[in-house]
Amino acid sequence: MNLDGIKFDVNGLVPAVIQDEKTGAVLMLAYMNRESLAKTVETGVTWFYSRSRNRLWQKGETSGHVQTVRNIYYDCDADSLLVKVEQTGAACHEGTFSCFSRKLGETKSEAAKLFDPEKVYGGS
Amino acid sequence: MNLDGIKFDVNGLVPAVIQDEKTGAVLMLAYMNRESLAKTVETGVTWFYSRSRNRLWQKGETSGHVQTVRNIYYDCDADSLLVKVEQTGAACHEGTFSCFSRKLGETKSEAAKLFDPEKVYGGS
Repeated sequence: MNLDGIKFDVNGLVPAVIQDEKTGAVLMLAYMNRESLAKTVETGVTWFYSRSRNRLWQKGETSGHVQTVRNIYYDCDADSLLVKVEQTGAACHEGTFSCFSRKLGETKSEAAKLFDPEKVYGGS
Repeated sequence: MNLDGIKFDVNGLVPAVIQDEKTGAVLMLAYMNRESLAKTVETGVTWFYSRSRNRLWQKGETSGHVQTVRNIYYDCDADSLLVKVEQTGAACHEGTFSCFSRKLGETKSEAAKLFDPEKVYGGS
């Protein structure tokens, strides 16, 4: 697939909004570089670029909570992506379906935990 | 409202995903600095920071297509926002409801135009 139209930023990244196709829930925002976007298209599951670890990662590689890609859109400026997925399990490493579980100004998550992070990612 | 928990990047910005509360459609992704986020909270309509024009802008200031804020969420890393809004008219300057109207690899928008951009923003 031709990815030439996508405008990656000075760091070679583009923000990708991940939305659960069935429920419409916005699950997370992560960054893709050209390689992870190509890999996402090629494999049909989401791959991102980790800015803290400086490497590609596949969503669900540890937890098994993979995101199966249904459609990928880009915006009118071609500098952000919307990836519609089928979410296996839950998107957030905290165990909630979406990473957006806290209202601005509040610190407590208002969403139910669908799994126990300690069990999935191991204890500290 | 206390915004201290939000992690703005090195440029003082945080990406904000704007979602239409009623339909669940992801409308756009734009950037907020602390001032525009505070103004959004204060006024109840979305304000962003334009990286190209280096100034705050209110969504709909030209078109009248304002976004009334229903709820603001932040993610588990506190470095991105999800703003649920009621969209007046259409979000995209191209006239479509969402800015994400093109599939990756395609150039033609697949969404209906809800207004004529020339009439709203003036001719070239």
